Amino acid sequence: MSQACWGFEEQGRRFVLHSPLAMPQASTFLWNRKLLLQLNCRGYATAQFMQPEPAKYAHAPTLEARTFMQPEQPYYAHHPGRFCYVKDEESGLLFSAPHAPVNHAPDEFAFSVGRGDVAWTVCRDGIEVQWQVSLPLDDAAELWTLRVRNRSGRERRVSLYPYFPVGYMSWMNQSGAWRADLGGIVCDSVTPYQKVQDYFRNREFKDRTVLLHEREPHAWEANQAAFEGEGGLQAPDAIMGRERLACGDALYEMPVAALQYRATLAADAVEEYRFVFAPARDDAEVLALRARLLSATGFAMARTDYAAYLDEGGGCLRIQTPDPWLDDFANHWLPRQVYYHGDSNRLTTDPQTRNYLQDHMGMAYLRPATARAAFLHALSQQEASGAMPDGILLLEGAELKYINQVPHTDHCVWLPVCLQAYLDETGDDALLDVQVGDREGVRASVAERIDRAMEWLLAQRDGRGLSYIAQGDWCDPMNMVGWQGRGVSGWLSLASAHALSLWAGICERRGRARQASAFREGAAAFNDAVNRHLWDGDWYGRGITDDGVVFGVRADGEGRIYLNPQSWSMLSGAADADRRDRLLASIDAQLVSPSGVAMLDPPYTGMREDVGRLTQKFPGSAENGAVYNHAAAFYLHSLYAVGESDRAWQVMRAMLTGPDPADGLQRGQLPVFVPNYYRGAWRSHPRTAGRSSQLFNTGTAAWLYRCMVESLFGLRGDGDGLRIAPQLPSHWPRACASRQFRGAVFEVGIERVEGLRERRILVDGTPLQGEVIAAVEAGRHYQVRVELPA
Amino acid sequence: MSQACWGFEEQGRRFVLHSPLAMPQASTFLWNRKLLLQLNCRGYATAQFMQPEPAKYAHAPTLEARTFMQPEQPYYAHHPGRFCYVKDEESGLLFSAPHAPVNHAPDEFAFSVGRGDVAWTVCRDGIEVQWQVSLPLDDAAELWTLRVRNRSGRERRVSLYPYFPVGYMSWMNQSGAWRADLGGIVCDSVTPYQKVQDYFRNREFKDRTVLLHEREPHAWEANQAAFEGEGGLQAPDAIMGRERLACGDALYEMPVAALQYRATLAADAVEEYRFVFAPARDDAEVLALRARLLSATGFAMARTDYAAYLDEGGGCLRIQTPDPWLDDFANHWLPRQVYYHGDSNRLTTDPQTRNYLQDHMGMAYLRPATARAAFLHALSQQEASGAMPDGILLLEGAELKYINQVPHTDHCVWLPVCLQAYLDETGDDALLDVQVGDREGVRASVAERIDRAMEWLLAQRDGRGLSYIAQGDWCDPMNMVGWQGRGVSGWLSLASAHALSLWAGICERRGRARQASAFREGAAAFNDAVNRHLWDGDWYGRGITDDGVVFGVRADGEGRIYLNPQSWSMLSGAADADRRDRLLASIDAQLVSPSGVAMLDPPYTGMREDVGRLTQKFPGSAENGAVYNHAAAFYLHSLYAVGESDRAWQVMRAMLTGPDPADGLQRGQLPVFVPNYYRGAWRSHPRTAGRSSQLFNTGTAAWLYRCMVESLFGLRGDGDGLRIAPQLPSHWPRACASRQFRGAVFEVGIERVEGLRERRILVDGTPLQGEVIAAVEAGRHYQVRVELPA
Repeated sequence: MSQACWGFEEQGRRFVLHSPLAMPQASTFLWNRKLLLQLNCRGYATAQFMQPEPAKYAHAPTLEARTFMQPEQPYYAHHPGRFCYVKDEESGLLFSAPHAPVNHAPDEFAFSVGRGDVAWTVCRDGIEVQWQVSLPLDDAAELWTLRVRNRSGRERRVSLYPYFPVGYMSWMNQSGAWRADLGGIVCDSVTPYQKVQDYFRNREFKDRTVLLHEREPHAWEANQAAFEGEGGLQAPDAIMGRERLACGDALYEMPVAALQYRATLAADAVEEYRFVFAPARDDAEVLALRARLLSATGFAMARTDYAAYLDEGGGCLRIQTPDPWLDDFANHWLPRQVYYHGDSNRLTTDPQTRNYLQDHMGMAYLRPATARAAFLHALSQQEASGAMPDGILLLEGAELKYINQVPHTDHCVWLPVCLQAYLDETGDDALLDVQVGDREGVRASVAERIDRAMEWLLAQRDGRGLSYIAQGDWCDPMNMVGWQGRGVSGWLSLASAHALSLWAGICERRGRARQASAFREGAAAFNDAVNRHLWDGDWYGRGITDDGVVFGVRADGEGRIYLNPQSWSMLSGAADADRRDRLLASIDAQLVSPSGVAMLDPPYTGMREDVGRLTQKFPGSAENGAVYNHAAAFYLHSLYAVGESDRAWQVMRAMLTGPDPADGLQRGQLPVFVPNYYRGAWRSHPRTAGRSSQLFNTGTAAWLYRCMVESLFGLRGDGDGLRIAPQLPSHWPRACASRQFRGAVFEVGIERVEGLRERRILVDGTPLQGEVIAAVEAGRHYQVRVELPA
Repeated sequence: MSQACWGFEEQGRRFVLHSPLAMPQASTFLWNRKLLLQLNCRGYATAQFMQPEPAKYAHAPTLEARTFMQPEQPYYAHHPGRFCYVKDEESGLLFSAPHAPVNHAPDEFAFSVGRGDVAWTVCRDGIEVQWQVSLPLDDAAELWTLRVRNRSGRERRVSLYPYFPVGYMSWMNQSGAWRADLGGIVCDSVTPYQKVQDYFRNREFKDRTVLLHEREPHAWEANQAAFEGEGGLQAPDAIMGRERLACGDALYEMPVAALQYRATLAADAVEEYRFVFAPARDDAEVLALRARLLSATGFAMARTDYAAYLDEGGGCLRIQTPDPWLDDFANHWLPRQVYYHGDSNRLTTDPQTRNYLQDHMGMAYLRPATARAAFLHALSQQEASGAMPDGILLLEGAELKYINQVPHTDHCVWLPVCLQAYLDETGDDALLDVQVGDREGVRASVAERIDRAMEWLLAQRDGRGLSYIAQGDWCDPMNMVGWQGRGVSGWLSLASAHALSLWAGICERRGRARQASAFREGAAAFNDAVNRHLWDGDWYGRGITDDGVVFGVRADGEGRIYLNPQSWSMLSGAADADRRDRLLASIDAQLVSPSGVAMLDPPYTGMREDVGRLTQKFPGSAENGAVYNHAAAFYLHSLYAVGESDRAWQVMRAMLTGPDPADGLQRGQLPVFVPNYYRGAWRSHPRTAGRSSQLFNTGTAAWLYRCMVESLFGLRGDGDGLRIAPQLPSHWPRACASRQFRGAVFEVGIERVEGLRERRILVDGTPLQGEVIAAVEAGRHYQVRVELPA
């Protein structure tokens, strides 16, 4: 695989992969306000829309469980996807775009990932197929374009068969048929239910899946089994040896949406077809979708609207560095991922509280008003005890689901941690005085509510002064360390210390000296307790079980060292310089792998009941011992906090798909998002180590963006000013950034200067005293030059 | 398709289908005390075992929903199954047995269904593969035998690849590898959970799936994706163009169990291989399974044990009639299906109460002690109100699931209806005096408990004297007729009348005159109320909704006539002779279709909210308007009750796959079980009308057996005697039966005699007065001759 096999194009706004074989798992995603569409390079797809809970309109061929979004979902022949078969009517040659289901090696292939569209170009035997999808902004609908070009230099007769599997829609009822009046294939179903109350909820559902065509097809098939016959998906009976699809229907059978267009193409001729694939409720809605979207104009308008929407979330930083892959990722793709999290809330109705707060921490840099509203909304669900709930309900009638039904103890920590970023970015200290009513009707200011959250953290300590873990902290699989009510979390104790310190700092600034002092004392007490009970000589232990067993320590054969306590001991100040040196050396020696920094090591190979489910969840393979990027991002943040800029660079570099294609190929990760993990266990499982989860839902994105803005480029808000303190890796001689900040633009050039002894900052040519540009003026363009010692 | 394409062999004990194309959905099932295995003729399989809830050890390739057993499950390439690829090492030719996944047309094919085993014989290009499975009696394990024979007359080199897909086992953890020490492929997983309490339940699970081999393979593959590669299941990369499987493993990837045996076969040589495919908990259990089962001796012993088990459930009737297909079905397959229901309780831990009682009504003819215990167990869960719960919990810790969480009102009806059959068969009136304690510790006799159940039925009437339907009666989809508490069921009112009459009869016999009289009055009141409010001129209406709308009447465009009220009006005596003639004519005109008698007509095509979910569940396709055999069996029973023997024969004939293969082919139904429905809507959907559901869970089996024993052959217990009253169809000149009854054997010959005016019964040559052979003596052989007027 050569370097040319993939790369960024259009100034980083597109990413192109030129082989369907090199990274068969590679994927990207599109989303809008109603819909999330994950697309694999071979044509497989997973789509969800909200009604109001996540729902599907293209299904597996079997009854699927409802679940949260999964990493590393396997693909298989009948996995949902969007395909187009192409048959040469003269030679009988059959292939499919993008690649599956026929899987014939193409002559040319491109999987071209834009920020608002995905396109494949597949050429075989002189017939080039372009297959492209984009989303409108406000409809749950996919807009597909099929463009076929005859590059063979002679007339060709071909049949094109757009093939959209719809799958097993429902055991209650499913059917499919072509509808002349609606102009497409309509697959109907009834969402199963057994209880009367569910009926009333379900009857508002969009239980219909439609494939609408702009140009009338020559034939169609709505019955999956009839489409396949004996030939299966690789050589469907409906296509092979038949002139026309049979125009069949599905009656309580698995439906499919397959069309046939016969085209005679002169040399160089191009034909274009447009389709809308969407869930719908009834005929009226189908007709409205059709009228609004299904035309060249409709597609173009949708594209314009969507581009404008993306631009709103373009972020506050544009960079240019000696590493162009980083520029492309940081300028276009990372803010896009942050925006997805903050604007869609991961397509859930009950985001985990920690995720919700961190996602909106990222949103503070993109669209701070949204972040502000989210913080207020979260606090409106604070419990009377001061605790934050396990999930934030976004809609009337939403319920806590899955892991949010299990009690975790870390949610309060994220309030000051995330708010700090928001306040630094916006200077909006007025937020702290906003009155927030809760469900019991009690009103209190934001500051008072955070006080209570901090007091709750202080209250949830054992006799040693360590934080109870209950059924998990940030690490939700760790659900059995303290389920009996006695076990404690070393990480959470340190995170509480950090949160208390941050909040104390904000209180001080706001003249709340009494609170500041109490919280500072609390932070110190947490740090002391951790230093007393969990310092293991060269690193911090992870916790102590219900039965008093300290774990994450050198005595452990598996799970001997965890990354999180080390990172947060540097943030909280628990680790003095000596301990910091020791724990960094321990991380380097034990957790740094070729794929990045592992979350723990050695990975567990079996259950250790006194350390909780983590050992069972992932023995020796996926998340267990993985390069879990969210944890790596905390580490990154903590490294910058202590000025370890070169170590930080190594961590960030490992987290992203780097300039060496071999890394990316092994990982199966396109550099268009940062996944939640790469596989770990590199010593025991070298074959799979480094493999990407393909899951783009992760707090990593927000933290990575924060680190780039505030630390790598060191352009962090501070009071009414902007603090300038870049921490470039030592191999960069220079870098530039354009930073939008409170309505002003800072054009920042950073350069290492030979012979320079001390950092120098010039603002509009004038040397700056200290490192803060105070009293930033909206609308102004600042020219900032930072000179660093070489 | 000629008649020779299928048929019974071995005196009806095997059924053989000679084409994989003729009936691609055709299926059968095997079960033992731990396991249920549904097998499709092309090799697809669905298996469940109990731990204690139904669980799977071979999964779909995606996360599956837990659900009750579904009709008409679609098959697709990656559906679980048990296959063997065969590659000719010289020519490269590839095929698979049974048929999928390669789907190459075989030269010869046989799908041979035994009562205790299933075998395929597939021959292509001179290589014959025999692929056979049986079950041990007490292990959750499948015993597979592969026999390959070279029929080509010359030496051949082949590779055989037993291929057992294991699927997506778990999102928490899954892996697969070959284990030399265990002698097979071991796929491990962890059942996902999120709540601590689930962990403690799950850790006892058999979360491992193993394929154990007796003979060491030459190579293997444990990784599904590696097995398939680009070729997919039709031409796996692991097989095509490679000498050996790659001996790979799966690490948090989808596992598979695939082996390779290379064999050089002289002309006519045969090679044999044995495998065990099973769930297991740990190494020790795998080794124990291996030692107990995996040998020629182990397989043979398992087969002997299983045959003995089947013989226990052989039933009480052997017949010989002018319709040999009926003899084969009634002598071997119908009792087997009844036995499955009664002995396995459909592999549920909470059978619906009505199903449980009816399944054990069937068991009364096979193993009455089991039926007795079941009736007592059911009554021990009677509620204080006299109501029966929606499901009967069979195990400590079991819970009411799915539809059993929805309140239905018919469960009490089945107590006398099913008990009548048990008492007639056994004469065990002592059961009525058995004291049964309930959950509150209250003790009462069986008779008293049934009194209370009848009183509950009488109490649950509205002002019109009709039975409230709540969220459904026997027809559980009909959940919205009366959910507001006012709607009533015409069928349930009639069924209550019938139940009360039956119970009054039993009370009379037991000298409980007061109760008998009260219940007779109650029955009459129900009949009167139905005649007053629901007689529609030519048939009975189905019910009245919460809003007072009568439905199932001539005014309705859809759902105009329902079968059940008509059947039960004949059983309850509500219908006088005139009404009976009218309703029978209405059934003939409106419900009798080419595939049998529909449950309602015309099928609903959309929701009609005032008639409940039925309209939504099945608009125009499957169960809605289907030939729902359970309802057809009630009709059958009611026809015999009023002496309509020829109409009854037509109903029974339609319910079974008849002598004309064309019927069976269209239905896709092998005559080895009666399915729960055949598709209806024959006028609107002729393409799919008649198609079998392939679902063998149905109360039909017990009713059909009861009708054959008690009505068609008319050999019903009565007090201490046996009543002889056969109702042969008029086209039968003669028939014979051997009837086991209370330890005696009755050899019964029935013949039509020209010129005879009245039926004559001779017992051991002596004319019988009346039709009851009184005081039956255990151990005695009775010769009975019945002469009927021609």
